[in-house]
Amino acid sequence: MKILVLGGDGYLGWPTALHLSEVGHHVGVLDNFARRGYDFEMGVDSLVPIETLQTRIRVWHELTGKEIGCYIGDLTDADFTYHVVRDFRPDTIVHFAEQRAAPYSMVDRKHAVYTQVNNVVGTMNVLYAIAEIDPEIHLVKLGTMGAYGTPNIDIEEGWIEIEHKGRKDRVLYPKRPGSYYHLSKVHDSHNIEFACRIWGIRATDLNQGVVYGQQTPETARDDRLATRYDYDAVFGTVLNRFVIQSVLGEPLMVYGNGSQVRGIIEIRDTVRCLQLACENPADRGDFRVFNQMTQSLSIAQMAETIARVSPEKVTIEHLANPRVEEEGHHYNVVHSGMVELGLEPHLLSDTLIESLFEISKRFAHRVRREAMIPTIDWRRASSLIGL
Amino acid sequence: MKILVLGGDGYLGWPTALHLSEVGHHVGVLDNFARRGYDFEMGVDSLVPIETLQTRIRVWHELTGKEIGCYIGDLTDADFTYHVVRDFRPDTIVHFAEQRAAPYSMVDRKHAVYTQVNNVVGTMNVLYAIAEIDPEIHLVKLGTMGAYGTPNIDIEEGWIEIEHKGRKDRVLYPKRPGSYYHLSKVHDSHNIEFACRIWGIRATDLNQGVVYGQQTPETARDDRLATRYDYDAVFGTVLNRFVIQSVLGEPLMVYGNGSQVRGIIEIRDTVRCLQLACENPADRGDFRVFNQMTQSLSIAQMAETIARVSPEKVTIEHLANPRVEEEGHHYNVVHSGMVELGLEPHLLSDTLIESLFEISKRFAHRVRREAMIPTIDWRRASSLIGL
Repeated sequence: MKILVLGGDGYLGWPTALHLSEVGHHVGVLDNFARRGYDFEMGVDSLVPIETLQTRIRVWHELTGKEIGCYIGDLTDADFTYHVVRDFRPDTIVHFAEQRAAPYSMVDRKHAVYTQVNNVVGTMNVLYAIAEIDPEIHLVKLGTMGAYGTPNIDIEEGWIEIEHKGRKDRVLYPKRPGSYYHLSKVHDSHNIEFACRIWGIRATDLNQGVVYGQQTPETARDDRLATRYDYDAVFGTVLNRFVIQSVLGEPLMVYGNGSQVRGIIEIRDTVRCLQLACENPADRGDFRVFNQMTQSLSIAQMAETIARVSPEKVTIEHLANPRVEEEGHHYNVVHSGMVELGLEPHLLSDTLIESLFEISKRFAHRVRREAMIPTIDWRRASSLIGL
Repeated sequence: MKILVLGGDGYLGWPTALHLSEVGHHVGVLDNFARRGYDFEMGVDSLVPIETLQTRIRVWHELTGKEIGCYIGDLTDADFTYHVVRDFRPDTIVHFAEQRAAPYSMVDRKHAVYTQVNNVVGTMNVLYAIAEIDPEIHLVKLGTMGAYGTPNIDIEEGWIEIEHKGRKDRVLYPKRPGSYYHLSKVHDSHNIEFACRIWGIRATDLNQGVVYGQQTPETARDDRLATRYDYDAVFGTVLNRFVIQSVLGEPLMVYGNGSQVRGIIEIRDTVRCLQLACENPADRGDFRVFNQMTQSLSIAQMAETIARVSPEKVTIEHLANPRVEEEGHHYNVVHSGMVELGLEPHLLSDTLIESLFEISKRFAHRVRREAMIPTIDWRRASSLIGL
């Protein structure tokens, strides 16, 4: 298959591109390096040093003989987007190319507007390029479990059968997301469902849980193939951040009482899910949704797990929650779709976390500690202090 | 009350501003004249001649002694939006200032992206201005019944109680809108609900049905106070368009078999609903939703009503439906909220339509007939031919 990975320079886009290449697909990557730019803005960098995209692609070719196509540009530039789709002629487009941090979208008005325009317009351009150039292309789009919020009913995979006043329908699962970033994913999903309905294109929407881990079999083959590993309060995902805090001897910072439950997934399962979605395309006209997570844990449970297995003595600190989110809520998620396609989940185990400890220790000297303190407050319209 | 009407030069914004002024509120209007610009693009004009906003405001002052404040600019320009909110210090912001035609959003990619960015960013800027300048301000936002689509269950007012696998929750009503324009309203609603939740601001979302009629008691006082009356296939709403077609001796063009049911509302009820929403504000933190419509009719029933009361002989023609929408669907809508606030609906009656016939006859010479033929096809990604 010819697979184009949008956002192929990112934390998950790059390992996904390598994995798809490894299993025999013809892969191209597209990126505008916006993610690398955010690092300058925040004064941080990936804990693990990462090479340029061009070097990464060269090293992969040296090690495996496999070619990865490379397109540098911005999806909100429609001319560029159409050019790439015409030039590469993918069977499948995997779309990671969005601003993906909730706190970044909550910095202030400009960051919120940027996040929504960047994500929504980029995705609209991709939808139109598919409709105009080749409606057979399968769009595999990254969404987030955070789009659902924390309803008091079980979370289904994208659609829900409702019985109401004696009548029934299958409707899009109602969403109540927790940031302007999460909202951008909800907007995307509505736009994609509509494009499937009117143009008969095929799409898979992956509502992904919080990802942890840093290595896949492919990235582990050479330091120069490493993917990024974020530790800061803006882009660092919670489990990865806890590991780094424990290695640095910093307390694990839990927001609120930590009873907030989140779906999580290990990075090796992410790349495997992407492979399964690509190799089992949605039907024409079908807006297919998977909840891409393997287990649910509360933030407090995640902190306790890290504290238990850490070689160092670890303390856990509770901060006033900078986010507006429910604590002590119901959380029961259906996530059987990927398993039915063949996913064998890696659950959170001590072994996995131990490899994260090693990586964190090796590069601990690269941390700017202040960047781990949350300074973006959901209740304020502007949180520019501290950035 | 001090009420700022965004989009105060438009079909409904202007009559709303006059009505709120008439009943004693201190009114300001804001507009960027985008709607007048679309006329140039389409080669059409309001059937009824309309004055400049400045003249309209002067005439109202001459007739009544009442002042209306006037701000010319674009809500997507945040500096302008903040300036106006700081300068006028409204108690209530009524927000009509969006691109409001489904077919316009479906012309091609550029029109779709323009519609979503214009509507979503303008509303985000208003939300942030409220949060940063005065969170007491009540936002009254115009939405559309089309945001719901045509589910097989009854349509509630914005929220729905769901029982699922033995648990219950009150969630946002699931939406499945029928155009990129309607989608922009769904995005807005999600963004506004979130702003209410995190910042405790107050908002009323009005999912309005298809509006018909052209006069209110205030606009009828002087020809120079008239509001626009659109007849073209892009901006003309269906009932108004049928009246004009009947006067011109053209067949009434029904898309598909005409069994599509829509909620409708007369223009005098629209301005009265806006008054009721303003004078009965939502509570702080409340995202309140009303279905602003007074009755449901199928497109075929609307055509038959016009044919029955027209003084001329009228034929009805069925076109292949250029839209992707369901025919023969369930449609039962709860719309009791406005009645509870005091609305006494004007239902579609022969008398009302007769005044529309008079207006249409008086200005029939201004019509460009080709503009009434639908040329925008939902199934094509680009419908530039014919514009």
